[in-house]
Amino acid sequence: MKSFILMGQSNMAGRGDFGEVPEIVNLNCFMMRNGRWVNMSEPINPDRTVFGTGFHSGVGLSASFADEYAKYFKEDIGLVPCADGGTSLSEWMPGEILYDNAVNNAKLALRTSEISGILWHQGENDSIEESDARTYGERFLQMISTFKADIGIDNLPVIVGGLGSFAKKRLNGKLKYLDIVNQTLCEMPQKLDFCEYASADGLNHRGDFIHFNSQSYRILGKRYFEAYLRCVK
Amino acid sequence: MKSFILMGQSNMAGRGDFGEVPEIVNLNCFMMRNGRWVNMSEPINPDRTVFGTGFHSGVGLSASFADEYAKYFKEDIGLVPCADGGTSLSEWMPGEILYDNAVNNAKLALRTSEISGILWHQGENDSIEESDARTYGERFLQMISTFKADIGIDNLPVIVGGLGSFAKKRLNGKLKYLDIVNQTLCEMPQKLDFCEYASADGLNHRGDFIHFNSQSYRILGKRYFEAYLRCVK
Repeated sequence: MKSFILMGQSNMAGRGDFGEVPEIVNLNCFMMRNGRWVNMSEPINPDRTVFGTGFHSGVGLSASFADEYAKYFKEDIGLVPCADGGTSLSEWMPGEILYDNAVNNAKLALRTSEISGILWHQGENDSIEESDARTYGERFLQMISTFKADIGIDNLPVIVGGLGSFAKKRLNGKLKYLDIVNQTLCEMPQKLDFCEYASADGLNHRGDFIHFNSQSYRILGKRYFEAYLRCVK
Repeated sequence: MKSFILMGQSNMAGRGDFGEVPEIVNLNCFMMRNGRWVNMSEPINPDRTVFGTGFHSGVGLSASFADEYAKYFKEDIGLVPCADGGTSLSEWMPGEILYDNAVNNAKLALRTSEISGILWHQGENDSIEESDARTYGERFLQMISTFKADIGIDNLPVIVGGLGSFAKKRLNGKLKYLDIVNQTLCEMPQKLDFCEYASADGLNHRGDFIHFNSQSYRILGKRYFEAYLRCVK
């Protein structure tokens, strides 16, 4: 089985409401639990409470990504959830808990699957301070490079996604440097081998100006898969 | 903060229906997600799908354990979910994925908390074959001894719980050796230092003759806490 590591902040974990879109049921799709594989069902990345009307672990982009993957390649796929809401890139650097947790889980995944990529969506938390935004690219490259070395896969595909431009309206414009981070993510394929970018253009938020709504997560997951195809073709 | 590692099979993970008992809200209780701590909310150990009318991750015994602990000691407590449904003790031995995952998570927990115990509930899957049941004790002792060494805590409290006797009626009596495993668990405190036993006497199942119902999980969690108190006093 092929597997993908989910890393990033809440929009990778998924915060969409469950009732908004049909559940994706695909018996070729799996998610990691305790280092093992179980049938995929959302929330795939339960980093927060599942219930509640506000922030909660919910629909994310990885479900439609996996569904598209399984249908296209006609093979099983496993998702390794490691994303954590509200986190900055600095919390993902080598030696940090989130990084080490992702390496631990990737190494467990390697025992029973072939890791075929990283799905990354993060950057909102690095759009507040200018220094974070301007150094995002170099820090991301350093993290990915170390991660590849730590799990021993050089040519690992990395799919990065765009941030919703609606986030610029959040908290009276607190995410001032969102365009800089977005531009950095968009240009990442020019700086990193086996990397492709999935755009968030035209997608909508769930009313909080930060998290995509469930319909948009479904579309974004498909765009991640299209980006993956570009990466491996 | 003090933390406890949750290990075992589905009755440690929790399979109780959500609506059956009031939610436990205690801001001194936390659960591990991606190596970090978030406010406790069930399902604490989401090893399976959360939704569905059959087997699903739900109410478990650890919530009321944590609630009692926080109230009694007036301090924060963190739960480290590592339990996985349908697993045999052989799948928990050193070097197996579940064991290594638990060690990984315990080591992450050690960075930000003091591990104060293991909560173990397992044995149904070792009640089918006589050889599994009769060797349960020695194998469990070996696993726990290695685990303590791997995380570097010699005098770690270990709370084990009784299996529901109703399980003897499951699947036309397939769990033939349940009494042997239960007796072994009950006598574990005589063989293992800092170990106590929480009885499942009088508790009820959720209709499937294997998983406790939510009310019983709440009671069992309190019994685990009483056992823990005996252990440390």
